[in-house]
Amino acid sequence: MTLTVPVLRDITEPNSLLAARLRTIFRQHNVLVLDIIASPGAGKTALLERTVAGLGRELRLRVIEGDPTTSIDAERIVAAGAPAVQINTGAGCHLEAGMIQAALDQLDLADADVVIIENVGNLMCPTGWDLGEDCKVVVASLPEGDDKPLKYPMAFATAQAAVINKVDLEPYIPARAARLRQNALTINPDLAVFEVSCQTGAGLAAWFDWIRTQLGRKRGSRPV
Amino acid sequence: MTLTVPVLRDITEPNSLLAARLRTIFRQHNVLVLDIIASPGAGKTALLERTVAGLGRELRLRVIEGDPTTSIDAERIVAAGAPAVQINTGAGCHLEAGMIQAALDQLDLADADVVIIENVGNLMCPTGWDLGEDCKVVVASLPEGDDKPLKYPMAFATAQAAVINKVDLEPYIPARAARLRQNALTINPDLAVFEVSCQTGAGLAAWFDWIRTQLGRKRGSRPV
Repeated sequence: MTLTVPVLRDITEPNSLLAARLRTIFRQHNVLVLDIIASPGAGKTALLERTVAGLGRELRLRVIEGDPTTSIDAERIVAAGAPAVQINTGAGCHLEAGMIQAALDQLDLADADVVIIENVGNLMCPTGWDLGEDCKVVVASLPEGDDKPLKYPMAFATAQAAVINKVDLEPYIPARAARLRQNALTINPDLAVFEVSCQTGAGLAAWFDWIRTQLGRKRGSRPV
Repeated sequence: MTLTVPVLRDITEPNSLLAARLRTIFRQHNVLVLDIIASPGAGKTALLERTVAGLGRELRLRVIEGDPTTSIDAERIVAAGAPAVQINTGAGCHLEAGMIQAALDQLDLADADVVIIENVGNLMCPTGWDLGEDCKVVVASLPEGDDKPLKYPMAFATAQAAVINKVDLEPYIPARAARLRQNALTINPDLAVFEVSCQTGAGLAAWFDWIRTQLGRKRGSRPV
């Protein structure tokens, strides 16, 4: 009898296999899927509230919220007017494809245009996990400092878009939005970069346009 | 022949064993050790710059900086006037005891009163790793929102002190320092809480006093 030793070459491979399956399901439903990554408190949920308010009458948005605990964020999204599912990860520092699969049981994809996943607040760990999304989006708030892309390059390197939030605070802090933008583009020249304030609403129209464009592209035609 | 299966009950145990050894070394040198945990951009390095400026003539401070990449933070500390060692963790989302052991080769403990470790910017992963420190300190910046202790309770539950930074921005944002303090104390009633601005310098005297008290306590006498 020959004994062989099973070697697990890549422990995230089961996640990748499941993510590929999710990507197929999303494509079958013609749904655009975004995975939002940021530090705690960068304004991911505020951006989603604004996005629901700005695009909710035009596109059917669905939100999956990831947090260690509480359902504060999902409740905010529901109050803003979109269906939302809360995932609590406990000590888990990122979302995985299996969690998204479970959340989809609570969302009717046939009835959706865009699914936005708000990952756990963590600028590092979520970057390595494929959730079947079309794009990863990194949100960086200006008060965090304009050197974040240089010090935490992974999130910016793996994202297709970067949203610089809280630019209304620029007069009161040393960080500069132009420097943050430049540092983000140094890490990833292909990033679409948006400077916004979810407090005042400034700059959000370009972000909404980008979502429309991504959905149109996925559906194979320019306009949605 | 009886086969037994080795079960690894706690994979962080090698870290805990090494951390216990580091704690013994720190005690032999009569050195107070703080492990600073926060989201990216909460102002850990700014707090250390202020601490070096405020206590550097009175206490011999040494700093160990943890970042995925760059030596930006350690250079800021050296410019502020204290010896600093930079650890680059790459994709690693937290510091481990073995990294601190390696950093100690670059710091002369016989010549130190306080070692401050600035962990990787991450409000979750560093909380579970013992570095041999006397206290963990969580830094939460007010623009991150006053609900952070409720949503990311681990850092607040395992810390002995919480520094609420950037309180000078309170007039311009919805978050309230008093609510953040209250939420932190809900998670951990024993926390020493400080409201500071590393931009203006407000509130730092109480933080400096807390460090003096911790050092005096470790050295077995009230005043240093």
